[in-house]
Amino acid sequence: MSERTVRASERRRESTDASLKQIGNIIYSQIQNREFPWIMMQSRSTDNIVYDPELGQYILGSRTIRRHSRNIRHIRPFTQMVWTAWFARELVHLRKTSTLREVYYSARGQADIEFKGQSESDGIITDLEVALNRPREDFNIFPEERSAIFGDLTIEYTVPGYEGRRMNLTDHPDGVMIGPAVTSSEFVETSADKVLVIEKGAMFTRLVEEKAHDKFNALLIHTAGQSPRSTRNIIHRLNKNHGLPVYIFTDGDPWGIHIAMVIISGSANAAHLRGLATPEGKWIGVWATDILDYKLPTENLTDNDLKRLKELKTDPRYKGDIWQREIDIFLKIGKKAELEAFSRYGLTYIVDEYLPAKLEAV
Amino acid sequence: MSERTVRASERRRESTDASLKQIGNIIYSQIQNREFPWIMMQSRSTDNIVYDPELGQYILGSRTIRRHSRNIRHIRPFTQMVWTAWFARELVHLRKTSTLREVYYSARGQADIEFKGQSESDGIITDLEVALNRPREDFNIFPEERSAIFGDLTIEYTVPGYEGRRMNLTDHPDGVMIGPAVTSSEFVETSADKVLVIEKGAMFTRLVEEKAHDKFNALLIHTAGQSPRSTRNIIHRLNKNHGLPVYIFTDGDPWGIHIAMVIISGSANAAHLRGLATPEGKWIGVWATDILDYKLPTENLTDNDLKRLKELKTDPRYKGDIWQREIDIFLKIGKKAELEAFSRYGLTYIVDEYLPAKLEAV
Repeated sequence: MSERTVRASERRRESTDASLKQIGNIIYSQIQNREFPWIMMQSRSTDNIVYDPELGQYILGSRTIRRHSRNIRHIRPFTQMVWTAWFARELVHLRKTSTLREVYYSARGQADIEFKGQSESDGIITDLEVALNRPREDFNIFPEERSAIFGDLTIEYTVPGYEGRRMNLTDHPDGVMIGPAVTSSEFVETSADKVLVIEKGAMFTRLVEEKAHDKFNALLIHTAGQSPRSTRNIIHRLNKNHGLPVYIFTDGDPWGIHIAMVIISGSANAAHLRGLATPEGKWIGVWATDILDYKLPTENLTDNDLKRLKELKTDPRYKGDIWQREIDIFLKIGKKAELEAFSRYGLTYIVDEYLPAKLEAV
Repeated sequence: MSERTVRASERRRESTDASLKQIGNIIYSQIQNREFPWIMMQSRSTDNIVYDPELGQYILGSRTIRRHSRNIRHIRPFTQMVWTAWFARELVHLRKTSTLREVYYSARGQADIEFKGQSESDGIITDLEVALNRPREDFNIFPEERSAIFGDLTIEYTVPGYEGRRMNLTDHPDGVMIGPAVTSSEFVETSADKVLVIEKGAMFTRLVEEKAHDKFNALLIHTAGQSPRSTRNIIHRLNKNHGLPVYIFTDGDPWGIHIAMVIISGSANAAHLRGLATPEGKWIGVWATDILDYKLPTENLTDNDLKRLKELKTDPRYKGDIWQREIDIFLKIGKKAELEAFSRYGLTYIVDEYLPAKLEAV
């Protein structure tokens, strides 16, 4: 087992633990000073979420709020947050992971903490992220979605029972599920020189089968639709720490475009976090121009698609030339196409012709 | 690489190939005899789908139909089916897999075969299954859904490039994705003495983390909602060929109940197939009685839930005592509960208390 890996993961764990403890200490000392306890954090209200063109992602502005137990309207979220911080520390201590949903039920059952529904509980977890300035994955709370990764990357696990064990991500030809173990692993070694991110499982399987990882010397990542944060963090790490360029390949419709954009620039929801966006990532298709150039089978854009495209057009993240051009062409042709549409030219066309052409062009 | 494994997988491949070729040969000889070609198959119309209490699953009755190119209404599905059979044989020959959606697009692009939409193409693939009397997985057409498996089972791959390579399913602590490679693998060895099937990813992760596979000496399978057919086939094989009893654990609502039932008794849609149902499988919860016994946090049943429960009550698969009793109690209490509801007693309660009690009782 490599010392370096143990140390990195232990350091992260200890610093999370320390910052959770600090919240408790602050509250204790406030009470000892005969103050009503409060927690200070950046405001997450829409008017404090701004797009930072330099960072290429949404960030929180400088406005802060105090959640104050003197204020009767704050007592409920204040109590919820203190309990959630306690629960997070239990998870870190016990080296257990949990999910957003389990936290909600745990609160209801174990502590008589009232949440109207899971979304209230999710919101408090986000508040805790803001207060601690670290993502919930650091305190072991994961979402349920599952994405996957494949290619020549050797990882070293840090989860209990597997510490120091290594796995090469080509070992399982169906692709390796991205759960807590992959997310918390160290990336030891890769011969890949790029990352290819794919929206859909079927296309991911196609690329694995066509040995796209060999042909393009790439790591393949399947986001299973809108990419979970842990997967975005993995993409970010591969780009930033390992210098791998990132290419994103989605359905040719407003929802696909936005999957690419959230990987590149993050979401307003996660404006309080760093380490999720990959501003250097490139959306390589399916473009509206691809629909025309490759004569792809299409469906008509629905009213809902059109509405969404118009929203994207005015979104600050979509300022760049390619985005504006492609949105305009989508609007003009009124058509959309799925990744699988390339099958019209045979199952291997996408690997033999389309992707090489695209990767050369961008 | 084990000879046995190669032989088993090659035998399956050759017999699929032979039966596809046979369809072609029959059509050729019909034409040479100056007949309009036709294909004979069992009828899939609802009045020919019957529940077989002995087999414990739906089956097709004895009525057959001829799809006849003399009949103008049949020419379209006849042509579609011949093309699909050709495409399936290409897949088998080239050792490639494909998905339902890719088949649809391939037809549109490569052969000017018209399909109104994917559902028409899916239907023709089912027809081909009926005509060949084998599942589409045999001719390498897979769905997109992904489920997962974990525990002490050593598999041997048969997919190209991995033939004869072995993997133990505890190797990746996030669980091993069930795709074409796991589905087509041979099961070499297991120390487990039961299979625990779980509807949801979060609970699957919980059980992996709590080492439920060790504690209960079980293989853990995550169906990701309604179980894909390949996953049902894996459950069937573990039960039938390896003698492992199967316990199914779902949300306590009509949709969860039916996930269990489809694993146990199959679906009307797959009445033409064997090897998917596991009649000895047992649904162990969340029962309506569990909601009462364990005082679980609940939601109210919606109108849609109630309607579905009443449908299930009259479904022939739900004749057994437990099903009728639990459906009645659900209707009476008007409540439902999710798997995660047990978190109210702590994250490990389900492994420490509930599952041991349930496994003892059934």
